[in-house]
Order: sequence, then structure tokens, then C-alpha cells
Amino acid sequence: MRDLRQLGEFGLIAKMAGMVGAPAAEVIKSIGDDCAIIDVSGPRKLLITTDAILEARHFNLEWMSPFEAAQRGMAGAISDIAAMGGEPFASLCTTAIPSATDAEIALELLRGLAETGRRYGAPVIGGDTVGGADRIMVDIVVLGWVEEPWLRSGALPGDVLAVTGRLGESAAGLNLLLHSPQLINEPEFSALRTRIMDPTPRVAEARALSPAGIVHAAVDISDGLHQDAGHVARESQVRLEIDGRRIPVHRACQDAERCLPAGTAWSAATSGEEYELLLALSPDDLPRAAQLLEERDLAPLTQIGRVVEGEGVALLREDGSEVEMSSGGWDHFRADK
Amino acid sequence: MRDLRQLGEFGLIAKMAGMVGAPAAEVIKSIGDDCAIIDVSGPRKLLITTDAILEARHFNLEWMSPFEAAQRGMAGAISDIAAMGGEPFASLCTTAIPSATDAEIALELLRGLAETGRRYGAPVIGGDTVGGADRIMVDIVVLGWVEEPWLRSGALPGDVLAVTGRLGESAAGLNLLLHSPQLINEPEFSALRTRIMDPTPRVAEARALSPAGIVHAAVDISDGLHQDAGHVARESQVRLEIDGRRIPVHRACQDAERCLPAGTAWSAATSGEEYELLLALSPDDLPRAAQLLEERDLAPLTQIGRVVEGEGVALLREDGSEVEMSSGGWDHFRADK
Repeated sequence: MRDLRQLGEFGLIAKMAGMVGAPAAEVIKSIGDDCAIIDVSGPRKLLITTDAILEARHFNLEWMSPFEAAQRGMAGAISDIAAMGGEPFASLCTTAIPSATDAEIALELLRGLAETGRRYGAPVIGGDTVGGADRIMVDIVVLGWVEEPWLRSGALPGDVLAVTGRLGESAAGLNLLLHSPQLINEPEFSALRTRIMDPTPRVAEARALSPAGIVHAAVDISDGLHQDAGHVARESQVRLEIDGRRIPVHRACQDAERCLPAGTAWSAATSGEEYELLLALSPDDLPRAAQLLEERDLAPLTQIGRVVEGEGVALLREDGSEVEMSSGGWDHFRADK
Repeated sequence: MRDLRQLGEFGLIAKMAGMVGAPAAEVIKSIGDDCAIIDVSGPRKLLITTDAILEARHFNLEWMSPFEAAQRGMAGAISDIAAMGGEPFASLCTTAIPSATDAEIALELLRGLAETGRRYGAPVIGGDTVGGADRIMVDIVVLGWVEEPWLRSGALPGDVLAVTGRLGESAAGLNLLLHSPQLINEPEFSALRTRIMDPTPRVAEARALSPAGIVHAAVDISDGLHQDAGHVARESQVRLEIDGRRIPVHRACQDAERCLPAGTAWSAATSGEEYELLLALSPDDLPRAAQLLEERDLAPLTQIGRVVEGEGVALLREDGSEVEMSSGGWDHFRADK
């Protein structure tokens, strides 16, 4: 009999999508994007997303404080709102915490959720509490508003692909934690530490770009550029060509070859939980988009590829070889193989 | 150092409530009721609730199928929408399932979520999937609409207390499962089986009563009447007097003394996961409320007590003794003591 490692995360999601039936009339977008979208009969649409973190899977209290684990989880959930071009305004947190947990650890976890929610404009307004768990798990729901949501399905042949900020720090930081954990607190690696302990959801960047109405498609990089780009390719029915040499990477990743042993471009293109935004937009609009971010002193926008007819995601590596990336990626069940 | 068993579930929630800061302007009701309420600038308000179930805590696959476990969980989450007088319209499910789980078990669980959501008008529109868990956990978010929400805080001295349906079947059924599990499938105990495997959230009853505008306060009975009544007493700053002899109890509970060893009234008043509604309304409106349910062939409404000045919850037992019930109740962490 198959178990979940054979079926896979996306297999399970696809099965679920086939079971749920037609959504209510007011549901504009159901399963298949970063958020569900709901028509509330007003000028703004409601966005809702849910994102869970599990101890020893998404965070490790040997590496980070309970506050940082919660901060990282909340940032990841809020990032889904930014990925639709939306503005978060509230969150709900379900916490499952082993009953023998020191109360101070539980309270630090709650403080991380509460403070990070407030920091990005999404104060916690509810949730649930479950006792008797074996490990800490937090499921975070975030609500947001958007006028014109960015979908994964809007990329057009001829568009350019651009990414906010830099990629690779998450993979480099995790690799450092695994192999040389004492280095993570060194000043030269502070960017890696920050990306893991305190990643920034690109809410301000979405706020700056959304009113311009120039973004055709977007996704946040949570499972890795290769895989999240694959969602855009599939939903938009296009092919994405990414030039790995153009992916912006922090000096700390480049300097420390041990950080990205698979090569900088490959590692940057497969690094998950980066929470940068991948955007598809017309080449004519790219300078304006970059300027909107620059004049607000936000994360810079870098062109890393283009959208063409076809399917899949291609990555051009440093050595000039091109690899197809759309199939292999992070899968929450297959990772246990 | 204290652990969560000393702090307790409500201690943890109270701490969280103190950390979250002011909600956004559109949040009408934050932590402290069955749902959060959001003003979406239209005639209807948005309700959102989240409710989690954990294997071996809220359900047991030795006793019920994965479909039934999911059905029970979804019904419990939807019940929170009914408790505000609302109409559910969508749900989101985050599932954490051990990676070695048989795919058929996982799919039955998803099918239970999908079909129960549809059955009560809340098709699944999103969620998250987490691998690597030790036990199955599902966090269920339900969205609903309401024009005039029923709050826990609206009970007035002089109101009567009424309950939909019957209480006690959940406690009786669980007791039967613990001590004589072979009996649960006997026809005479089918009501107990149904209450545990397939409880009915009182969505239709809320739909029938809500437009009349006669319900002053409501709560769904998820933690036990004593405790949920305690929420109403505290939020409304009133005292609730419940006549245990008037609590409607199914014959299967009365007949089988082994089902409710602590006595029928006490057991019915402390039985959790019943998902009946406790309503406070003017005595003048009670006949009309009962009629609205009766003419639609819905769960009957029974007067079980009254609201007076003061605080706390009193229960009159069969022997004429009155006990204070507001303090002792189900607590997700204290249960592990």
C-alpha cells in the first residue's frame, strides 16, 4: 500500500482539490494560489492563507529561540499575502504545545507570534489551543486586503522575471547551522542568520508595487525558486527561463563556498523559505517597478529571466549548462524518504 | 518552573490576549468569542474561527474511521459559526499527517473534511500540508457571514436560557466506548454513536433564529455546558442558574446508568463536544423561537434556566442541591495533570 511518501504533498493537494466541490459564489480563487480570494461586495477583496510550522521540521529550538521560531512562522504566513500584492490586517494562530513545555517557552512563542503579527500589520485576533501534542506546531492564518490580486496564472510570453532582494541566504544559513553552527553568530554571516531567524515578508514591496497595476503574476519563494517558478509556469501555461548567473546572492554566500556546496546559482535557485517575491511583468514596466522600490528604500528588484511560450522552468547555470527545474523540488512528505 | 499544566489553556489564552495589541479598525471582535468578527464594509459581517483536532486527544482511529474523525472535526469548527448566528460559506484545512501514514487513511481523512464542509455549506477552499508529524493533526478554519452576530456578552438579567437538542450523549458515548466499546454499535445506543462520530452543528437552527433578532447571547457547547455557560456569565457580567432536571437527555443516556455514572444532570452539564447551542433570550420571545425551529422540523428548544444579576453558573442537581459550576471545566492542558 502506498504511503504519503509515494503520494507526495502535491499529490495529496491534487486529490483534495478533486474532492472539495464547487466553492461558494463569493470565492473568487480557491485551492491553487498563495491565498484564497473572497469577494466581500466592496472595492477590496479579502485574502486568506494558512501556513503551519512544526518543531524539528520547520524550526529547531536548539538553533533558535521560541520567539524566533514564531517570528519566522508568522513572517512566512504573511508572505503569502504579499505574494498576491495584498495588505495583511489580521492573523489567527492555532498552537499545539506539549503540556510539559516550560511556560516561559510557550509564552515566548506566543510573544513571537503576537509581536511579528503587529510588526507587519496583522495583529493576532483569535486562534485555538491544543494540549497533548508531541512537538510544537503552530498553524497561522493571515487575512489581507487587495484591490487587484496578483495571481500565479497571469504571466505572459514576453514578460521579464524579476526577484526582490537576494536568494540563497536561507540555504547557506541552514548549511552553516548544520556543519559549522558556531559561525552563524559571526558578523560576516549576519545576513544568513537574519534570513533564517527573522526573514522579511515583502509586504512593503507589495504595497509599493500593487497600485501601479503592472505586475502580471507573482509568487513568494517559500519552497525554492525552481518549484515556486514551476507553479507560475503551470498556472500561466508558459515556460520560464531563469539565468542563474543573474540571481542576486549575498557576498556571505559567495565568499563561503562551504555555504552553498552545490554551486551558487543552483543553491540560490533551490533555497526555500527565502520569502522574496518572484514577479512577471512587461519589460517596459520593469524600470518603473524598480524605481518604485528604490525611491522607498525597499528591497531592490533584479531581472533574472524571461517568460516564453512552452512549459516548465529552465535554469542556466554558471558553466553555461541549462537544466530543467520544474519537477524536482521540496516536498513535505518526499523529504522523509 | 511552571509548565503549561499549571498555566492552563485559559491562562495561556489570557496571556496571548494581553500581547496581541489593538486589532485593525475593521476587526469588530477579536479574541474572546466563538469567532472573530470583521467589518467588510457591507451589510454582512465576516466571521472567522479556527478549531484543531489532534489524534489520540480529540479522536482515536481505533474507535472511528479517518472519515468520521474528520467529519467530527469539521462539524466542531462549523459549530462556532452557528454559535454566532452565522452562515458558514468556506473552510480551509491544514493537515499534519505522519509521512508513513497509509495513503488511503490520509485520503479518507481529506474526504471527511471535504464532504462535511460541503454538507454544511462550507466547501474547503485552501489550507496547508505538513509532513513529518508524529500524529495526525488537522486545523480547520471556517468563514461565515452574519448580519447581527450573537455574542457571548449579550445576556441580560431576566432572560431565559434555552438549549437546542439534547445534552449528555457525547459523555455517555465516550464512557461507553471506554468501558463497553462493543455496545456502541447496538441500535439502542445509536444516538450516542452519532453524537460522537457525526455530530450536527446547529447551522440550520441558527439560520432559522438569526433573522428574528431575538437571541441576546449564544455559545456552542464544545467544552461542556458548565464551562461554555461560564463564558456567557463572564462576558455578560451576569449569573446563570441552570436547572439540571430540565436538561433534555436522550433515553439511551437515562436508561444506561453506566453511561453517565456521575448522575444524569451533572454528566449532561459537563459533557463536551455536544455542539448544541445555549441561547439567552427574553422569556416573551421563547415561544416564538421554539416555534421557528419546530415549523422547520429542526432541533427542539428547551428552557433550562435563567439569567440573574450576579456572577458564575449554578446547577441545580436532581437531589435539589445547588452547585457552583463556573470554575471546574475541561482544560486542554490541565487534563494532562
